[in-house]
Amino acid sequence: MKAGEMKAGEMKAGAVQAGNWLEQLRFDDQGLITAIAQEAATQRILMVAWMDRQALQETARTGQAVYWSRSRRRLWHKGEESGNVQKVTEIRTDCDGDVVLLTVEQAGGVACHTGRHSCFFNVLQDERWVVVDPVLTDPATLYRKP
Amino acid sequence: MKAGEMKAGEMKAGAVQAGNWLEQLRFDDQGLITAIAQEAATQRILMVAWMDRQALQETARTGQAVYWSRSRRRLWHKGEESGNVQKVTEIRTDCDGDVVLLTVEQAGGVACHTGRHSCFFNVLQDERWVVVDPVLTDPATLYRKP
Repeated sequence: MKAGEMKAGEMKAGAVQAGNWLEQLRFDDQGLITAIAQEAATQRILMVAWMDRQALQETARTGQAVYWSRSRRRLWHKGEESGNVQKVTEIRTDCDGDVVLLTVEQAGGVACHTGRHSCFFNVLQDERWVVVDPVLTDPATLYRKP
Repeated sequence: MKAGEMKAGEMKAGAVQAGNWLEQLRFDDQGLITAIAQEAATQRILMVAWMDRQALQETARTGQAVYWSRSRRRLWHKGEESGNVQKVTEIRTDCDGDVVLLTVEQAGGVACHTGRHSCFFNVLQDERWVVVDPVLTDPATLYRKP
């Protein structure tokens, strides 16, 4: 078993992993881990993004989702411009500790930069991607400073 | 806009993307894309794995989840040993086309190799990972050939 690999597979329900929780996750060679945000009320997947250790630590500490923006190369407090922050009510990881799953309450009801509820608005139908969800907020107003 | 990047952000609900659906996704430099399996009945996230183009094409063609196993370096028809196949009822992608979200019906009710319903059975509580879901099937029997 590799260092840092989750041992939870062998553990019974209720068992607690000893040691540093952050170091028990498997960040990739760029120091990042995949993070999924699932909405508490609807159970919909709102978005998938990346976190580094600091982003995850900030998320756990503050109770609001903080991601690592690969394009901007900096921490990205979700909603910092739009106000559409994500309140995080639970953090899970999977059997091999290389994905984190956040349960969130999405302020403003819009997680996607296109102004939609969820980023997953394209459905495969007859070998074509079809947009199935409406734009709820004009993206131009979403990122305009007040 | 990069070649292959989803244009769906600009499109209204009901709009259909022209062109090859596979080529509109963004596979990483190893030719892989993140795939999330969400259970239709419970809306729980069962697992996260990888797909290459062929895995995704097979998934769409057969209606059963086929992943790319990075450890075994081959296509992995989920349930090929355990019988716990995933029937795929919907395939979505997100605004930038770099994640696919499958809606599935999980045969046997067990998606995780540890014998649990979902791979996401570790919850962060007081800076420790706590196993919150029970083992439903002994993993030793899960992979024994009949």
